[in-house]
Amino acid sequence: MSRPLVLGVVLFPDFELLDVFGPLEVLGFLTDHFRIVLVGPESGPVASAQGPRTICDHGLADCPALNALLVPGGRGTRREVDNPHLIEWLRKRAAAADLVTSVCTGAGLLARAGILDGRRATSNKRAWDWVVSQGPRVDWVRRARWIEDGKFWTSSGVSAGIDMTLALVAHRFGVEVAEEAAWRIEYTWHRDAAVDPFADPRPKR
Amino acid sequence: MSRPLVLGVVLFPDFELLDVFGPLEVLGFLTDHFRIVLVGPESGPVASAQGPRTICDHGLADCPALNALLVPGGRGTRREVDNPHLIEWLRKRAAAADLVTSVCTGAGLLARAGILDGRRATSNKRAWDWVVSQGPRVDWVRRARWIEDGKFWTSSGVSAGIDMTLALVAHRFGVEVAEEAAWRIEYTWHRDAAVDPFADPRPKR
Repeated sequence: MSRPLVLGVVLFPDFELLDVFGPLEVLGFLTDHFRIVLVGPESGPVASAQGPRTICDHGLADCPALNALLVPGGRGTRREVDNPHLIEWLRKRAAAADLVTSVCTGAGLLARAGILDGRRATSNKRAWDWVVSQGPRVDWVRRARWIEDGKFWTSSGVSAGIDMTLALVAHRFGVEVAEEAAWRIEYTWHRDAAVDPFADPRPKR
Repeated sequence: MSRPLVLGVVLFPDFELLDVFGPLEVLGFLTDHFRIVLVGPESGPVASAQGPRTICDHGLADCPALNALLVPGGRGTRREVDNPHLIEWLRKRAAAADLVTSVCTGAGLLARAGILDGRRATSNKRAWDWVVSQGPRVDWVRRARWIEDGKFWTSSGVSAGIDMTLALVAHRFGVEVAEEAAWRIEYTWHRDAAVDPFADPRPKR
């Protein structure tokens, strides 16, 4: 077996809790396959959009080499697209990585950095127009639970990150590993990336 | 509208990430209804079972009054059932609360404290025998996504906490609030508490 992927999870003020901790719930026990590094503006605490604070292992400036990235969404992305330090960091680190993933409006950050230009990608539906406006040269796919395009994996809103992560685990390490991971967390894996009920308007009662 | 419920989320070393951050993803934006307080052994960082560290707002000794509790699972529960300081704290705080919830093996902590005696309750399936052994006078229900018994709400493993939380929101604040919360996170809410595929053996391929 190859060495674990070193996955940098990119945090910023007002990141969305489940965008981060859904995927990390799945990956956190696959220690043969992944080593998780939390990267923030600097090492130390960063507050989520919901309030709880998480401790970053490294800041952008002192972050070790990574071969995978996870970029979450959350209302903080609206500010961070105008943070040239983060955008430039993402551009360089994405170029060096074997795997680049986003959840929800995290795709807006990747798009703003030009990382998704010419690629198929998706994002959440509530902020769709804003995300699309960040990347006019991206081939946006609105109806998708997640999209894989080469080394780029982007998911729809929030909980879709769990389904994408399980698909990614299946793709790289076999469906048995993904099924066991889903069963362990008593999660009904939505495994068809094309099924996306949230692309439609919410049914009214 | 009444004042927000002050919900104490009880953290300990090796808590399970999604047991905490699934429910908090749902509740964290319902700021009219809930104020979230993270309570640990002491204020400051506590490490999850998967590694990431979260900052507790208070320690057990300096925690303000609470009217609701959320007790997560995770492998740390195996140790914490033998922590008399925590068990006694849970007993006192549960008696004073209007609402007591657990996710996964968090029910084992409540059971060990005697809080669930004579009550119907559930927990996750992988650690079922261990959890049941913590509370011989609890009316354990194996096949359930979650169980409500008066002020006590207990869920099955890990991701079931999200479904229970949505049901709790519907119960207290109306199904429209819960449906909106689920849609916001693009989550397909499993709303029938009696449907629990994880009570059966995992299908073999």
